[in-house]
Amino acid sequence: MSTRARSLAVLALFFCLPALAAAPEARPPQGEYTPSGAQILSESKPGEWRRPDPEDLLVMRLPSGRVVLELDPAYAPLHVANIRTLVRERYFDGLAIVRVQDGFVAEWQDPEGVDGGDPHKLRSLGMAQATLPPEFTRPIASSLPWEKLPDGDVYAPEVGFSDDLPAARDPSRSETWLVHCYGTLAVGRDNPTDSGNGSDLYVAIGEAPRRLDRNLAVVGRVLEGMDKLSALPRGDGPMGFYARAQERTPILDVRVVADLPAAQRPNIEILRTDSLTFQRLLQAARDRHDAFYVTPPGKVDVCAVPVPVRGSRGRPLN
Amino acid sequence: MSTRARSLAVLALFFCLPALAAAPEARPPQGEYTPSGAQILSESKPGEWRRPDPEDLLVMRLPSGRVVLELDPAYAPLHVANIRTLVRERYFDGLAIVRVQDGFVAEWQDPEGVDGGDPHKLRSLGMAQATLPPEFTRPIASSLPWEKLPDGDVYAPEVGFSDDLPAARDPSRSETWLVHCYGTLAVGRDNPTDSGNGSDLYVAIGEAPRRLDRNLAVVGRVLEGMDKLSALPRGDGPMGFYARAQERTPILDVRVVADLPAAQRPNIEILRTDSLTFQRLLQAARDRHDAFYVTPPGKVDVCAVPVPVRGSRGRPLN
Repeated sequence: MSTRARSLAVLALFFCLPALAAAPEARPPQGEYTPSGAQILSESKPGEWRRPDPEDLLVMRLPSGRVVLELDPAYAPLHVANIRTLVRERYFDGLAIVRVQDGFVAEWQDPEGVDGGDPHKLRSLGMAQATLPPEFTRPIASSLPWEKLPDGDVYAPEVGFSDDLPAARDPSRSETWLVHCYGTLAVGRDNPTDSGNGSDLYVAIGEAPRRLDRNLAVVGRVLEGMDKLSALPRGDGPMGFYARAQERTPILDVRVVADLPAAQRPNIEILRTDSLTFQRLLQAARDRHDAFYVTPPGKVDVCAVPVPVRGSRGRPLN
Repeated sequence: MSTRARSLAVLALFFCLPALAAAPEARPPQGEYTPSGAQILSESKPGEWRRPDPEDLLVMRLPSGRVVLELDPAYAPLHVANIRTLVRERYFDGLAIVRVQDGFVAEWQDPEGVDGGDPHKLRSLGMAQATLPPEFTRPIASSLPWEKLPDGDVYAPEVGFSDDLPAARDPSRSETWLVHCYGTLAVGRDNPTDSGNGSDLYVAIGEAPRRLDRNLAVVGRVLEGMDKLSALPRGDGPMGFYARAQERTPILDVRVVADLPAAQRPNIEILRTDSLTFQRLLQAARDRHDAFYVTPPGKVDVCAVPVPVRGSRGRPLN
């Protein structure tokens, strides 16, 4: 697949710009229109893309294929370090996706830890910490990048992007946090705020669950394979837990990409949110007017323009 | 299943209030906490629920089960009338879900109308109209109910609820419209704004695609069986269209519920958004504080609290 075809496919999945039309019509000259996301991306410069640190990348293999996750140590350093420890101990290998609640989350953990499991059979956390101080927000600091989105937000005083992730700030409390959008990766916990340790992880698979912001530790996002989580059968028990063990999706293994041989490492680049190209994508989303869109939305929600990801395998990264 | 257990299950799916905890802990006395959604619903009065008009209800049968859709003739009367005509002509029977784009939409239409199809084999629309004036917005009118949500919105000057559906208003243009949230049902079209006729329908299955507001005709929502659409395999072609015909999900048939024998009619009630109970649900979502949630979100997005639906079959309606 050509680069152009690939970036079109990436855009179709990521940015959802194309019309809902079944049979595209002849389009009038493009000069009148907002440039398409595909066009904007095709004009990006190599330096606007970054390669994730292999220490921050996880590959989770499911029977249906791989899911690639990026961890952000800046916002939840203790949780991210604990997750790396767990992964390197092979803690997740052979565990399962135990919960898929429609419109909400897909979650994985030790099945012995859910209703019907045997707490005495819980897998050991090994060298990982069992409890961690909550890392639901961080103090605003100059070390944390911040590109404010001027469009406003229902939930937070300010929203924007930080470390190429959607984020929010409350200057009056000098707090900043990563927000829950579609594809966000975060740490499940029990009621005590220090009970999350990274052995229980979830990804948002529906409407952005913003009410979770500042109540759980966001640790990153899904870069590739989102559909491997979002299209799973929904759990039939309370809160989307599977009522029967055989309905769960097994996790074959999870690895830190830095530990993989070069040939097995995902070749992924992420568009920097401080790039001109990302600003152009945001502006095109606000101004959206083309042969299909007649009323531009005028604004963009912080979750509405997922940060583009591209690969080099000639196939779209969801 | 008891009524109480059922309403808990409904809430778990609809309102996502419960913690992400695997093993719920003993909770402190509830007096300190926001009442749960389940508790609020258990205190609702019968008159706060309405039974949808069987003329406005559709049952779409898929191999995996049924999807129940409610049409709202107030906002798109011509489109709704055309859809009813198509259904009564058995237009949809044997067609297919041709597109599932991750994080965006599931869409169904005549497969001959998509890329690779044969336009000469397109199914006849029969007595239905082939083109319709766009019904993307309506003039604000006293006949359209309106409960304004004071929490604000990124996209619209005002948001709220109308006909128990999420909606928006722009008083400066005297326009109102139904907005795209998770589970919204709307009419696909080609580029010309009058090219939608209801033979091509889609449901939002990911992040609320608010950029579609005022660009397409919203005709209703999914009341039951959302997971039958949201958990479908994603299409592997551009824009989530299936590349191969055999990957499509066949539509067994679609019926207007008024045409079904009484025993086959879904027994569904919808909470009225002008009810005290719905106001209490919104307030509890804003104030959310319990043994799990430590930081209340303070606000609710218009798409964040799906209007509750309940059945009488002892099972949750997603």
